[in-house]
Amino acid sequence: MEHTCPFCNPSIGDAAFARSRNFLAVYNLAPILPGHSLIIPRKHIESMLELDESMLTEMIDFARKVTRLLQKVFDTEGFNWSIQDREIAGQTIMHLHLHIVLRYPGDLPEPGDWYPKLQENAGQLLDSGARERLTPEEMQKIVSRLRMEKLEEF
Amino acid sequence: MEHTCPFCNPSIGDAAFARSRNFLAVYNLAPILPGHSLIIPRKHIESMLELDESMLTEMIDFARKVTRLLQKVFDTEGFNWSIQDREIAGQTIMHLHLHIVLRYPGDLPEPGDWYPKLQENAGQLLDSGARERLTPEEMQKIVSRLRMEKLEEF
Repeated sequence: MEHTCPFCNPSIGDAAFARSRNFLAVYNLAPILPGHSLIIPRKHIESMLELDESMLTEMIDFARKVTRLLQKVFDTEGFNWSIQDREIAGQTIMHLHLHIVLRYPGDLPEPGDWYPKLQENAGQLLDSGARERLTPEEMQKIVSRLRMEKLEEF
Repeated sequence: MEHTCPFCNPSIGDAAFARSRNFLAVYNLAPILPGHSLIIPRKHIESMLELDESMLTEMIDFARKVTRLLQKVFDTEGFNWSIQDREIAGQTIMHLHLHIVLRYPGDLPEPGDWYPKLQENAGQLLDSGARERLTPEEMQKIVSRLRMEKLEEF
């Protein structure tokens, strides 16, 4: 636990809608598109490369199940997965997180636009008013809806 | 095997520098930054979600080892991983591929710039003169160098 880390703050539980043994799926407070969620380890781990093999397997398996859950609820098939590992790669919160961004036909002017949006968004995930955030009510509504779904086996 | 798929073409072997049972690591013919490589299944599989559990584990484990190999050879720690799954998510070659983009201090004007570059690049990986490509000699030199390295266990 890092005291200044937003992903270690107990309030992250309000955004969590699915969990595995060592990971949480959390809905992004300022989604760049509907469905934008993050997979994070419960413990404070910075890099993908620090996970042991069983944690790595668990993370990716969980991420895939969460992706399928999101596809169902948001009724779309396309998605981007993205990881920034280390500050020079654009990682702004030093707690490992995999972005899952659901995609929709014609959602952004250019196919590549989601990534700069994600970068704008990254540093402001939980604590900035600079970017449009969901209200607590909107957040609770989405998270409650997502919690109703079961993760399915592949 | 899909006859029009550049990742199913036997010439992909020239760009391959590491392999696991079901996957190849290939150096990008038009890297957006030095080290830019792809993890692809040997068989023609379109989506991450089509992999069975053991293939998924193998892919991610292999991707991580390849990332560490690249970090060593290109002497940097930061990296981005990215997947576009389905055409509406920006996937242009319909054969699953995970991008590994090595990052360097001050490599791009903005941290998010790598992603639009990757999009420009995606459709032109093997068969376009529109984007600057490595010469066959440059490609062979890099691939030969990478082939000298062993994948290390985590």
